[in-house]
Amino acid sequence: MLKTRINTLFNIKHPVIQAGMVWTSGWKLASAVSENGCFGLIGAGSMKPDLLRIHIQKLRKYFTENNIDKPFGVNVPLMRGDVKELIKVVIEEKIEIIFTSAGSPKVFAKELKAEGMKLVHVVASVKHALKSQDAGCDAVVAEGFEAGGHNGIDEITTLCLVPQVADACEIPVIAAGGIADGRQAAACFILGAEGVQIGTRFAVTHESSSSEIYKQKVVEAKDDATILTLKKLAPVRLLKNKFGLTADALEKSGASVDELRELLGRKREMMGIFEGNIDEGELEMGQSSGLVNDIKSVKEVIHDLLKEYDNAIKKFC
Amino acid sequence: MLKTRINTLFNIKHPVIQAGMVWTSGWKLASAVSENGCFGLIGAGSMKPDLLRIHIQKLRKYFTENNIDKPFGVNVPLMRGDVKELIKVVIEEKIEIIFTSAGSPKVFAKELKAEGMKLVHVVASVKHALKSQDAGCDAVVAEGFEAGGHNGIDEITTLCLVPQVADACEIPVIAAGGIADGRQAAACFILGAEGVQIGTRFAVTHESSSSEIYKQKVVEAKDDATILTLKKLAPVRLLKNKFGLTADALEKSGASVDELRELLGRKREMMGIFEGNIDEGELEMGQSSGLVNDIKSVKEVIHDLLKEYDNAIKKFC
Repeated sequence: MLKTRINTLFNIKHPVIQAGMVWTSGWKLASAVSENGCFGLIGAGSMKPDLLRIHIQKLRKYFTENNIDKPFGVNVPLMRGDVKELIKVVIEEKIEIIFTSAGSPKVFAKELKAEGMKLVHVVASVKHALKSQDAGCDAVVAEGFEAGGHNGIDEITTLCLVPQVADACEIPVIAAGGIADGRQAAACFILGAEGVQIGTRFAVTHESSSSEIYKQKVVEAKDDATILTLKKLAPVRLLKNKFGLTADALEKSGASVDELRELLGRKREMMGIFEGNIDEGELEMGQSSGLVNDIKSVKEVIHDLLKEYDNAIKKFC
Repeated sequence: MLKTRINTLFNIKHPVIQAGMVWTSGWKLASAVSENGCFGLIGAGSMKPDLLRIHIQKLRKYFTENNIDKPFGVNVPLMRGDVKELIKVVIEEKIEIIFTSAGSPKVFAKELKAEGMKLVHVVASVKHALKSQDAGCDAVVAEGFEAGGHNGIDEITTLCLVPQVADACEIPVIAAGGIADGRQAAACFILGAEGVQIGTRFAVTHESSSSEIYKQKVVEAKDDATILTLKKLAPVRLLKNKFGLTADALEKSGASVDELRELLGRKREMMGIFEGNIDEGELEMGQSSGLVNDIKSVKEVIHDLLKEYDNAIKKFC
């Protein structure tokens, strides 16, 4: 695969990053991705600060015991009520690369940069990409409308967002949203990205901690299986299961934020992704689900990605 | 640019198709695109049958007088009340290549194929692509969520739609939606497309018949300037101007189809695109608007597209 500034920034072989995903990307997934030459992220989104610390320590222990020397990072959603404690754990554990999302990177940028950390923020518009660059970020993830889970309000797709962010920014851009195979990764490099972040494809691996039932639902999902909904609360892309369709119908009826919040309740993501409650859970997944047709190991995912990439670029060379 | 089955099917130099666009793609735009080695379409969407005939005849007269021997086509939206009369004109005028959209291609496929025509249908999902193939279409346009104007209900983006349609179909796939530059065209070829259809970028040329005010609005538009709205009627992507925002607010309040239809009224597209009514008109444009920063000639658009394409693929070779 192409060598870019992202290879250098993260000290990785392939400029492929595994997305932080709630109930999915613990130390097992992150370590497997890093071990295989890409960049793994422990996703703090569904972890209390103490649990995040345990995952970081377990990953380090596994690497030490197996004599593995590879970088990894942590993803912290900035909208969390206990974000200061999460950041404290990340600093105390001397994490070198942090991805932040859902909020302004400015609040913690100085503190994190002062610790020598590399900082990457997830954005969904040119405006926020430039703000992240101004705040001192080392790179941005430009995430399109097709991404699973929480999403931007402007609904800009990866095909349109990536070239515009790449044109506007000096810092390197990592493309995200809808990417599950090597063809799409190559397409994103063509658009100006210097790395790709992949979510759903890595969620459907043996090393992911999401429920086997969730993984099977992604495998079964076709091109039109997901919807972006709950836009009045915080837009989220999920499977059109009973909960997804109910939420969307309520929103389309003109329901208030309070009514939507009441329907959503608590722990829907855990119910859906971790516990595999097919009807009542929130089964977050990207539009790329239609391209994910099997559950395999992280090693196989990366192997196939590289093969697909090579095949895809052949037509130009 | 790559040589594909689309070059052969249409007998064109570059596998680039100009989209049929209401109030925009008359004989002047279509002839300029075809004259410059790509494939021009007269868009019947905003033409009565007699006017369509006049545009076809004017284009042919211009080609004859200037000794130009290039192919061109006609785009017919199948939902039109007078679709039979439009089809009659197309047959009587011996059009060789027809693009259909917004409806089932099956209804007219036999009749058109019996006339020896090549038939291409615009789809927004794998299911409809397969139906088009079964109906006898020679190719499909796979058009993503980012496209301007009328759009599919499943909101699948070009990045996710194109590879899935290409995997599912035997017939060649033309990518559409959000494509304004050569990088994006190359990205779509990587995804499995054998041609690209470009709308908004060709709408903002000297040869387009849309209002200069409309063209200027596209030039000013940023990445987040458009919205897909009126989904309960027929989803349409347009500028977030006064009308666009009003329509979207009404829809989000839970308004009925009748209320939306009343707000929409009649001739909004003409008011916006042709007459340049900035506040009350429907200014249809794609998310690619953020990448369209100047008004130029069709010749310059195609020249720049090829240059951007060459630059983009260099990184692989």
